[in-house]
Amino acid sequence: MAANVKMDGDFHVPEKMKAWVLNDPGELELVEKPVPAPGKAEVLLRIDAVAICATDLEIIYHGPPAMIQGGAPHGKNFTPGHEYMGTVAALGPGVDELRIGDRVTVEIHAGCGQCKRCREGMYTSCHNYGKNYGSVDKGHRANGFTTDGGFCEYQVNNVNTVIPISDSMSDEEATLVVTAGTAMYGLTELGGLVAGESVVVTGPGPIGLLGVAVAKSLGAQPVVLTGTRDNRLEIGRKLGADHIVNVRREDPVDAVRSILNGAGADYVLECSGAANSFNEAARMVNRGGRICLAAFPSKQVEVDLAHIVRNNIYVFGIRGEGKSATHRAEAFMRQKRFDATLVHTHTFSLDELPEAIRYAKERIDDAIKVVVKNDAGRNHGMLE
Amino acid sequence: MAANVKMDGDFHVPEKMKAWVLNDPGELELVEKPVPAPGKAEVLLRIDAVAICATDLEIIYHGPPAMIQGGAPHGKNFTPGHEYMGTVAALGPGVDELRIGDRVTVEIHAGCGQCKRCREGMYTSCHNYGKNYGSVDKGHRANGFTTDGGFCEYQVNNVNTVIPISDSMSDEEATLVVTAGTAMYGLTELGGLVAGESVVVTGPGPIGLLGVAVAKSLGAQPVVLTGTRDNRLEIGRKLGADHIVNVRREDPVDAVRSILNGAGADYVLECSGAANSFNEAARMVNRGGRICLAAFPSKQVEVDLAHIVRNNIYVFGIRGEGKSATHRAEAFMRQKRFDATLVHTHTFSLDELPEAIRYAKERIDDAIKVVVKNDAGRNHGMLE
Amino acid sequence: MAANVKMDGDFHVPEKMKAWVLNDPGELELVEKPVPAPGKAEVLLRIDAVAICATDLEIIYHGPPAMIQGGAPHGKNFTPGHEYMGTVAALGPGVDELRIGDRVTVEIHAGCGQCKRCREGMYTSCHNYGKNYGSVDKGHRANGFTTDGGFCEYQVNNVNTVIPISDSMSDEEATLVVTAGTAMYGLTELGGLVAGESVVVTGPGPIGLLGVAVAKSLGAQPVVLTGTRDNRLEIGRKLGADHIVNVRREDPVDAVRSILNGAGADYVLECSGAANSFNEAARMVNRGGRICLAAFPSKQVEVDLAHIVRNNIYVFGIRGEGKSATHRAEAFMRQKRFDATLVHTHTFSLDELPEAIRYAKERIDDAIKVVVKNDAGRNHGMLE
Amino acid sequence: MAANVKMDGDFHVPEKMKAWVLNDPGELELVEKPVPAPGKAEVLLRIDAVAICATDLEIIYHGPPAMIQGGAPHGKNFTPGHEYMGTVAALGPGVDELRIGDRVTVEIHAGCGQCKRCREGMYTSCHNYGKNYGSVDKGHRANGFTTDGGFCEYQVNNVNTVIPISDSMSDEEATLVVTAGTAMYGLTELGGLVAGESVVVTGPGPIGLLGVAVAKSLGAQPVVLTGTRDNRLEIGRKLGADHIVNVRREDPVDAVRSILNGAGADYVLECSGAANSFNEAARMVNRGGRICLAAFPSKQVEVDLAHIVRNNIYVFGIRGEGKSATHRAEAFMRQKRFDATLVHTHTFSLDELPEAIRYAKERIDDAIKVVVKNDAGRNHGMLE
Repeated sequence: MAANVKMDGDFHVPEKMKAWVLNDPGELELVEKPVPAPGKAEVLLRIDAVAICATDLEIIYHGPPAMIQGGAPHGKNFTPGHEYMGTVAALGPGVDELRIGDRVTVEIHAGCGQCKRCREGMYTSCHNYGKNYGSVDKGHRANGFTTDGGFCEYQVNNVNTVIPISDSMSDEEATLVVTAGTAMYGLTELGGLVAGESVVVTGPGPIGLLGVAVAKSLGAQPVVLTGTRDNRLEIGRKLGADHIVNVRREDPVDAVRSILNGAGADYVLECSGAANSFNEAARMVNRGGRICLAAFPSKQVEVDLAHIVRNNIYVFGIRGEGKSATHRAEAFMRQKRFDATLVHTHTFSLDELPEAIRYAKERIDDAIKVVVKNDAGRNHGMLE
Repeated sequence: MAANVKMDGDFHVPEKMKAWVLNDPGELELVEKPVPAPGKAEVLLRIDAVAICATDLEIIYHGPPAMIQGGAPHGKNFTPGHEYMGTVAALGPGVDELRIGDRVTVEIHAGCGQCKRCREGMYTSCHNYGKNYGSVDKGHRANGFTTDGGFCEYQVNNVNTVIPISDSMSDEEATLVVTAGTAMYGLTELGGLVAGESVVVTGPGPIGLLGVAVAKSLGAQPVVLTGTRDNRLEIGRKLGADHIVNVRREDPVDAVRSILNGAGADYVLECSGAANSFNEAARMVNRGGRICLAAFPSKQVEVDLAHIVRNNIYVFGIRGEGKSATHRAEAFMRQKRFDATLVHTHTFSLDELPEAIRYAKERIDDAIKVVVKNDAGRNHGMLE
Repeated sequence: MAANVKMDGDFHVPEKMKAWVLNDPGELELVEKPVPAPGKAEVLLRIDAVAICATDLEIIYHGPPAMIQGGAPHGKNFTPGHEYMGTVAALGPGVDELRIGDRVTVEIHAGCGQCKRCREGMYTSCHNYGKNYGSVDKGHRANGFTTDGGFCEYQVNNVNTVIPISDSMSDEEATLVVTAGTAMYGLTELGGLVAGESVVVTGPGPIGLLGVAVAKSLGAQPVVLTGTRDNRLEIGRKLGADHIVNVRREDPVDAVRSILNGAGADYVLECSGAANSFNEAARMVNRGGRICLAAFPSKQVEVDLAHIVRNNIYVFGIRGEGKSATHRAEAFMRQKRFDATLVHTHTFSLDELPEAIRYAKERIDDAIKVVVKNDAGRNHGMLE
Repeated sequence: MAANVKMDGDFHVPEKMKAWVLNDPGELELVEKPVPAPGKAEVLLRIDAVAICATDLEIIYHGPPAMIQGGAPHGKNFTPGHEYMGTVAALGPGVDELRIGDRVTVEIHAGCGQCKRCREGMYTSCHNYGKNYGSVDKGHRANGFTTDGGFCEYQVNNVNTVIPISDSMSDEEATLVVTAGTAMYGLTELGGLVAGESVVVTGPGPIGLLGVAVAKSLGAQPVVLTGTRDNRLEIGRKLGADHIVNVRREDPVDAVRSILNGAGADYVLECSGAANSFNEAARMVNRGGRICLAAFPSKQVEVDLAHIVRNNIYVFGIRGEGKSATHRAEAFMRQKRFDATLVHTHTFSLDELPEAIRYAKERIDDAIKVVVKNDAGRNHGMLE
């Protein structure tokens, strides 16, 4: 640990930690790594829980994601995992926002702070994405993407990416804040003032389900959820969906327009990534309506651009959780506006990560969010 | 004329007028129609000049446009034409914003004023589009689209659609205000504060060329114009383009990124409607950049949505000239910031409309904007 | 009734109605007036309940309000009252948004639809305020201010000012929607995305108390309420205030900064109109914070403008309930996010209006919101 | 110089430099100081010219400004001066946006990048203002305010505060970019889309005069300038004012409303700091209009808050030049939209700083902007 890192005497940070690293695609190995030291404006977190995201599977099975531009140096020593929460174990220089022992969750993107986008507050669109190494270290971090992530015992985080949580929030629930924050970011960009307006969420994955919850918390009315699996749609209903549409049994556009008396929705939050989802969303919204794309098909798809132009539709592609939306999502969760744990289905220990990943990947036992807990890690740390 | 229409004694409005009407597709006929009377919040304009837009050709040759939703009653008596200017000839009840004799130009859309969008100021996305007849007359007007337009001697306009012009602006130039206003609307929605930011305009049609001019007036830097015709690109240069790219000789994405030192543009104003224009625009903008679609391909096209999401790109489809953008465009033209007449290439008289349309349709003699003047109409009207 | 007014056969609208009119200041008289007929885009409402607002008292005791600019023609026949709700009794031409029998509440301002502000969606700042008569009828209405209001049995309303309510909302509660909508408008203009941000509400009058409720519904955290009366502060606590400060016992600036750990609030919603409230609000907000003024002192007050400039504070004066905020407030009330009826303390019949006003004016029995019900009016109307 | 500072072999940076330091109020002394070394994301500038601002006089004659909150450690060694430009002499770690030898000008505020405001892009309202020393170094810089400024030969600047300039811009003109940027920031916050809208600028000091120029560049129409000195008003006319009003000869509110046909202005940019300026601005704007306060009276003043509320007026206090507005201002100046040098009246050498300050303070010879050039400094530096 660097000499200028403030450490409370009560927290013993070890020199070494257990960490999963990615070798060849699909091959994770549990190794020993040095515990990293927090730099300026960074803290060291003891990771207490980490959820598995579809993007983690993408990275683990297909290598570094296409969204990494600029050639981040993923060697064979890379630790994935980005939806984690934990306990502040050490403070880097200049940090007074947090104290050792604080329970926190994290968002992914720490912008460089220097580029055009960061200066606008759009740090998730940082123009120095991935530049956190070599001769032009811009300080950008996206833990689990371009910098080491959370499938391990300790990780450093820029203070901008750390969100304190309340004692009443469990570790498992806290891993879901960034997912709810992504949905919140979409709604923020769509206008944010959705009370009394209609929102359709397409796709009941984790972002979609928490998108239902966040939209409802903001007062949206009605909230319609579309998807293919009845059990997930039912969870959506518990999270606030006023109407659910199983697209295997109904045409989703017809169903939405029928629910909305033919008028079309004010907003669509697209979370399915299905090939026809864009054109369907465009036909679900009313003239002047807005669509947020939080998911995407893996291949190019045919799109009716004429419909977008003729109907003055605006489309917002979002990557992750920008504009401090995780803080807004955490506030709703802290206030118990919705029960995010409804999307948490399975728990494993850190040592069992490969099995946890198998559950998430193959959706075994209807898995939605699989969480890995690091209870063993608690043996060191705070002496309470 | 209705009894409560205020008329200055000096302006003699005849009972009947000459008007072109659309019979079968492509068949225009010059007939005599009654001069319409302005209602509440409307004025009667003597039409002095009208430009021909590509959408006019669409309507004339393919029937009422697809953008008419709700079944507007285009019978065989419909008069197209929407890019016109003229002289105020009579005032409807409650009008005190204008005086008889004022020279004005027009924008297209008069919203209903009651729907969700109109209440937001988004009158071009009026939810009662086309409802200006029958038992639920919502007062929406889109002259030349859903209500009679400008290929005639007189037309009524809601005062919201009327923009006073300066004496130093010629009739021909004034017909171009709404085209510049459409480009201005796109830039407004994209953020509006473009001084010092980079803008690419794709497609040197009338909207694209005036888009170059408006972006430059706002201080954009650099402004890049792409297209296929050198003569049009040269006009773009005169209107303010810092760089021009002939896509027949260069790959437009490579060229733009090279001009911008690899960084990508802050904004793309897409005015070509080419099949590959969307994907190219998406690769021209930088992360967090914005694209305005002011044109569209006639068929569905393959689109890389993943690129939009991963790069947090926002896409704004615009129909026409909303948010009072024509007023802002007129201000720049009044202040002589650019010479819109560079896109005006040919002039015909009202009687020669079919020939004027032939020039516009077949781009005879490199026609860009063809204007029809109604000088004969000046025989009646103001006794000066 | 005009011939073109659509009326359901089941609703019998009488020719005459009971209406209170204002003679000399403070003198209300119950007279018989003709039932007005709805014009284009208007409906006739049977008024079922109307709340008394401090502005009503101002109008009744001091004549037409200073906010009437342009000389609205209040003769001796003027009917005040603006916080009302009722049942749709007849539809003017072109109305299809509502049906006879719909229960609705109202907002105050129907903009002209033609001016700069209305075209922006800022209809509460209509530049033709009060112009709804004479030779330049612009169609602006502010019922109870510049046009006849709600202390009577029937009134016409522009459809833009009508908000349908759910059956689960009582008449009394429905009269409070516009009050909550005013608070919502303030929060909308302040940025709207207040989840997890700190809001101070100063002054526990009806707008302040519902301001607490709306801010909390939006996820604000913490919400602090300041005032002088413990009983009202306690109501604020029930409506969502996390902290209450009695300014008779504590310095409000010190108390707020102590609650917020010295940091200052993100937003202040000023609803007290106290002489020192502006300077105090400016010292409650943090750098870059925002203040909404929903109330004002009756005289000029000394203000520290240097503090505003040095701390980049933005101040939003609001008149009433703009930007469709009543719809958003109604959505939260429909969803039972808070119990607005906590601010409703007394009920009288329409005939007892003077007594109701006495209660409201003298705050007899701790009166907050006094509601006048028109149960007798139900004798005519829907034949159910 | 630190070992990791990249330096081009062609630029010789000395160990020591000349620097003016502030002793007791009003007492500047020319001393020798070490040349500072740029840290991460910083560059070292050779200062070629620096203008004198009224705030400099405030600091020099009355000590550290009231706007310094938190106790910045101004000892007797503090170097004031903040409106400077120069040449990049050395690059700190991680800097690739600039090259040694680049001519640049600067803005004042480098936010901490971590606080709520910086994360929103509102870095001029940084919540860690002044914290750039001691145990909680947050990296905030406001050179000439809380960190050493520009009345010397070299200074370090965060890259966020550096704006490259074109070769066609003189050193003197470049010192004015931040002044134009402050006016631009005000117009940005007021809405930014002012083409065709009316703007009143009150007070023809440097910010007011360049406010006229920037408003006109954005297409404002008309632009009205009010003030007390005819010679300055005439400069305003040359910079784009359509109308000038000498408030010694005309009532400014009457004059503005007369020029605007009684309607009131859309925006007022208040740059006079006069005691009555706020109330006058409030009566100059129309309903729903906006006021930017870029200056302030030294004492509390009586303000009519009721007028602000009743007319839905929004007031924006701004400190300096936020939201990258200097970049937008520089773009207009680069494009020669206006001649900022009209406000530059006098030039002195760095050694003559006290005399330069006397000219600025006493407005000798009608001084507006007095610039200090460091031509001697050019003896070292680039070997061209």
